[in-house]
Amino acid sequence: EDEAYFSGYSHFSIHETMLKDKVRTESYRDFMYKNRILFQDKVILDVGCGTGILSMFAAKAGASHVIAVDRSDIIYQAMDIVRENSLSDKITLIKGRLEDIELPVEKVDIIISEWMGYFLLFESMLDTVLYARDKYLSPGGAVYPDKFSIHLAALGDLDYYKKHVIFWEDVYGFRMSCMKGEVIREVLVDVVEQQKIISDSCIIKGWSSSSCQVSELQFSQDFAITVTCTGTLVGLVSWFDIGFETGCPSVVFFSTSPAHTATHWKQTIFLLDKPMEVDKGTVLVGRLTCRKDKKDPRALFITVTLCGKSYSYVLQ
Amino acid sequence: EDEAYFSGYSHFSIHETMLKDKVRTESYRDFMYKNRILFQDKVILDVGCGTGILSMFAAKAGASHVIAVDRSDIIYQAMDIVRENSLSDKITLIKGRLEDIELPVEKVDIIISEWMGYFLLFESMLDTVLYARDKYLSPGGAVYPDKFSIHLAALGDLDYYKKHVIFWEDVYGFRMSCMKGEVIREVLVDVVEQQKIISDSCIIKGWSSSSCQVSELQFSQDFAITVTCTGTLVGLVSWFDIGFETGCPSVVFFSTSPAHTATHWKQTIFLLDKPMEVDKGTVLVGRLTCRKDKKDPRALFITVTLCGKSYSYVLQ
Repeated sequence: EDEAYFSGYSHFSIHETMLKDKVRTESYRDFMYKNRILFQDKVILDVGCGTGILSMFAAKAGASHVIAVDRSDIIYQAMDIVRENSLSDKITLIKGRLEDIELPVEKVDIIISEWMGYFLLFESMLDTVLYARDKYLSPGGAVYPDKFSIHLAALGDLDYYKKHVIFWEDVYGFRMSCMKGEVIREVLVDVVEQQKIISDSCIIKGWSSSSCQVSELQFSQDFAITVTCTGTLVGLVSWFDIGFETGCPSVVFFSTSPAHTATHWKQTIFLLDKPMEVDKGTVLVGRLTCRKDKKDPRALFITVTLCGKSYSYVLQ
Repeated sequence: EDEAYFSGYSHFSIHETMLKDKVRTESYRDFMYKNRILFQDKVILDVGCGTGILSMFAAKAGASHVIAVDRSDIIYQAMDIVRENSLSDKITLIKGRLEDIELPVEKVDIIISEWMGYFLLFESMLDTVLYARDKYLSPGGAVYPDKFSIHLAALGDLDYYKKHVIFWEDVYGFRMSCMKGEVIREVLVDVVEQQKIISDSCIIKGWSSSSCQVSELQFSQDFAITVTCTGTLVGLVSWFDIGFETGCPSVVFFSTSPAHTATHWKQTIFLLDKPMEVDKGTVLVGRLTCRKDKKDPRALFITVTLCGKSYSYVLQ
């Protein structure tokens, strides 16, 4: 199954999508170009380098050397790209799973990686970044991005609910109601318009790259959000925020929230099995639990308890 | 790899997309509801039944019995759906590869299947339909759709070319020109606006379900298309047409061409390595060859010779 994961990244189109996501790519670029002092004469490790864009940003920002690792065949393109940009003396590319290979240096000063998946944690690539931190990061070194958090709010979009759930009640004259459960069980990935959010938002959990442990990526967290607009609650919406902060003269931050420019991560949506009328001022109290699938550790099981009822979701 | 293929159809969202493709689903519905005489008291085989929608159309059209086969886990939903619509006495669902299972009848009167993939032949599901025909179809029986053809025209969309090819010449200040070859090598799947077509179109190849042999699905064919509008040729566009014709009192036809309502199959695009100025009236002469990948028989290798130059594409 890991083969399928890595080969998904060998098609060029996913790299085109990621590069063209300006919120993502320009945040990494700005972090490096505006904080050159961090990179000056430093050794950098780029985990999951893809086309090598982050490694090239780091080289241009003044790094003495960049080691870029990727398991996917895209690294053969990255090798050509680095050569095309006359950066072969600055960037060393290594094909392989980071856990399996031996780096040509004992320690690195900075680790950079764009490891985020849907709902931040889908694909579990952060596990590899933390492995790299524990094995290769110098004392006093840093992993960027260094701050990341998952947020939650209430979704009041009855049209969305009709389109994806009620739809199954009459399909060309046939009932397919049993599909409703299947749809609700899957975490949906879609762009949510800000005006469909009918509550304030809360941070479900935040982490810091310096202290984060793999064990903390499975968690259970109480939440409370307040309805800001009387309407029909059809689900919860989640997104994540990313910060490049510690030690940065110029802090860079981006958010994948519905209030910001949409990214290729969109938002993640947890639909309820029934729409629920809610009044302004109501406090929605609940608990969210996130666990990895033991059979497919890149997939996530998410359980939400809301107003005393429990819902199970899968992101796979 | 076959596991990956079938498990791709276990997610509900692909079935939502296919059902919501009205051009597709209503064509099958209209074919069956408007040609009830074909289905009256007949035994039908539905190859790759998915949610069971075609089987239910057939049952409502008067079939005495429908046998529906699918290898994907979606068939468990289809079982629930058939029960929900009180059609369990009319429709028998069987999970498995058609080539591996034994049907509960020796012969069937009609085979229906929605087997079409991108560029018509991607995924090679037609091979299974033809296997079913040769093993199970009664003399005098029919396989629907019974007519299908692949068409080709010239694409004059320089913006599209810039967006997907020229893009790689400057990515945030870096050259990634080597990616251009990768992009061009992959068959692109996208909706093409009709006004971007700058030639007439030709039929590359047409088949009839009654006589078609698996060997004919790999082919080599000369073509000639005439430029209808002076402009910049950046590639070729292909689509397919589908007919329910033989023995039908009411013929049904649909096209996935840019001139018709877009479907989930969109069009397939073969980009050239360099844009080429072409004048109205120019005849573009070439040859298209389509071969299966021996390592992954659901993938296709397509070679196009145009104006004396040869281009290789892969659809995977």
